[in-house]
Amino acid sequence: MATTAPGSAALSARGEQVDALPSPYLLFLGDAVEAGYAKTAFGLRDWAPERCIGELALPGARVTTGLPPLQPREAYQRGARALLIGVATRGGQVPELWLPTLSESLRAGLDIVSGMHDRLGDIAELAAEARQLGRRLVDVRVPPDGIPIASGRKRSGRRLLTVGTDCALGKKYTALAIARGLAARGLDVDFRATGQTGIMIAGAGIPIDAVVSDFLAGAAELLSPDAAPGHLDVIEGQGSLFHPSYAAVTLGLLHGSQPDVFVVCHDPLRSHILGLPDFPVPSIEDVIAQTVAAGRLTNPAIRCCGVSLNTVAMDDQAAAEVIAATARRLGLPVADPVRGVGLEALLDACAAA
Amino acid sequence: MATTAPGSAALSARGEQVDALPSPYLLFLGDAVEAGYAKTAFGLRDWAPERCIGELALPGARVTTGLPPLQPREAYQRGARALLIGVATRGGQVPELWLPTLSESLRAGLDIVSGMHDRLGDIAELAAEARQLGRRLVDVRVPPDGIPIASGRKRSGRRLLTVGTDCALGKKYTALAIARGLAARGLDVDFRATGQTGIMIAGAGIPIDAVVSDFLAGAAELLSPDAAPGHLDVIEGQGSLFHPSYAAVTLGLLHGSQPDVFVVCHDPLRSHILGLPDFPVPSIEDVIAQTVAAGRLTNPAIRCCGVSLNTVAMDDQAAAEVIAATARRLGLPVADPVRGVGLEALLDACAAA
Repeated sequence: MATTAPGSAALSARGEQVDALPSPYLLFLGDAVEAGYAKTAFGLRDWAPERCIGELALPGARVTTGLPPLQPREAYQRGARALLIGVATRGGQVPELWLPTLSESLRAGLDIVSGMHDRLGDIAELAAEARQLGRRLVDVRVPPDGIPIASGRKRSGRRLLTVGTDCALGKKYTALAIARGLAARGLDVDFRATGQTGIMIAGAGIPIDAVVSDFLAGAAELLSPDAAPGHLDVIEGQGSLFHPSYAAVTLGLLHGSQPDVFVVCHDPLRSHILGLPDFPVPSIEDVIAQTVAAGRLTNPAIRCCGVSLNTVAMDDQAAAEVIAATARRLGLPVADPVRGVGLEALLDACAAA
Repeated sequence: MATTAPGSAALSARGEQVDALPSPYLLFLGDAVEAGYAKTAFGLRDWAPERCIGELALPGARVTTGLPPLQPREAYQRGARALLIGVATRGGQVPELWLPTLSESLRAGLDIVSGMHDRLGDIAELAAEARQLGRRLVDVRVPPDGIPIASGRKRSGRRLLTVGTDCALGKKYTALAIARGLAARGLDVDFRATGQTGIMIAGAGIPIDAVVSDFLAGAAELLSPDAAPGHLDVIEGQGSLFHPSYAAVTLGLLHGSQPDVFVVCHDPLRSHILGLPDFPVPSIEDVIAQTVAAGRLTNPAIRCCGVSLNTVAMDDQAAAEVIAATARRLGLPVADPVRGVGLEALLDACAAA
């Protein structure tokens, strides 16, 4: 995914049935020396600047979000209510080196929000200190309790889902760009987060790939509840129906979301599924056909309303050409929301859902 | 599902990478008064008689498997190594009333095997007693640790999966009947269990619907590992691609199993998905088409090799007619394995996989 700034966002996140995260955030960067490890922090800065008060980096870090550097107490005084771990580590473990800062943050009055593989609550001394101080350790990879089995019942309101030809090519950014663009037009819209970074950006959501299989579609139903007739939920997609590891996650999310329309996300330069050289990336046409074939089970009117291309690795002319050629071939609006090309026509199509 | 006895079975279950359950079993019936609540015990008696030493019912029970009634100590002396909870309760809770018998079983030298919703290990006094005595409390609904993300890599050996037009209409019984029938012909075959009763029958397996979504296809890969070229895994299916609650489970199992052939299980009298009157049961043709469309991702050669009809509620003539008509319509072998009609032709097709 691109990590360039798409500008400021103001996304509502009502999360009626989903716990809201404590915020605003102080973004923790650890001692990161490569921007690639701080993608969560950049995502927060780019898409939820109103939730970000400042950043905190350890000595040796060579990455910055450009936000003011603040210590925990100072951040709390300026309104921060949580330290958000905005950096990943190899293997997803919490390094010993971080513990003094995490502890100091708790004492300064901040909760801690993490999307790491290791659960904060499993670090005994941190858990004890949080309990004693009445602070929360929020692991956003942990789904809520009480997810029901999906009922398949048609819900009121409208829904849009982003789907992809592969993982990690723009489903979250596309959903955020559509939600922001439609909100800016005055539409009643919510971004619904299904992955850890999306949840931190929205302040609520369900980590759909961490839900026990039997409850997957039920989690998607819970995430986008009944709404007013004119309301639109823009739901962050996961995986791909053509991904041999994750297609089940994609299908459960599709069935539970019962989208009226979907936007296919695609990287024109990617020939094979990420990390799986034996699996070619499917065509956009195949993804549209298979998404309609599967999705009509819970919404017989499901249709594709457009395509989002990730052209970050192309120059302006090549990007413009592939966007125009794809639109001609499919007869659908095609945009690159990060590049800002074609977005208005895509938003028109989404608004008409 | 029918609970009539299809006769004795001798199913191998190597479970190379999956823990084997302690057995033989003493079947515990609680104080059940309706046979419907004791389906697990009947399934064990019918499909794994060589693993069943006797039964234990509490006063007031009005259900019997016909096996010798034994107390725990007596059962242990005759070779039993586990008390198997063969009865379900409303809500899946373990009644207080059972605890003295469970405790006595531990003291008699038996482990306890359960597929109930409540985990035995969560009953503090029982867990403490088991720990003290060195006994195991085995909850078969709990997946093993260390399930990998699916790789999509093609494995050696051959695989057959049962799929369905709905839940609860014969996928487990069909897989067991095919595995037993082919084993009786001298083929090198394993039944691979994916649900709690199947796991108890096979003595090993993975409760696929209890696996976290991200690892679903990986669990299916783990369940049927590389095997000799002539070996056939017969894998118990789950759910249905057309079930709005469980289709994701079905898809992950399909992709991870990468079956060469599949058998569609169907109940000709069922018009709607069980418990969901707004969802019609799909046609067998639709299930074949959608299973091939999805399954060819991990096995491009996937094909349907036959159909299993559940005609338990029909008389002999009506059953024979629907079996013959379905075979004519589809041009495929069609059987009711429980009734014993058409099984040899279905086995021929499975053996030719």
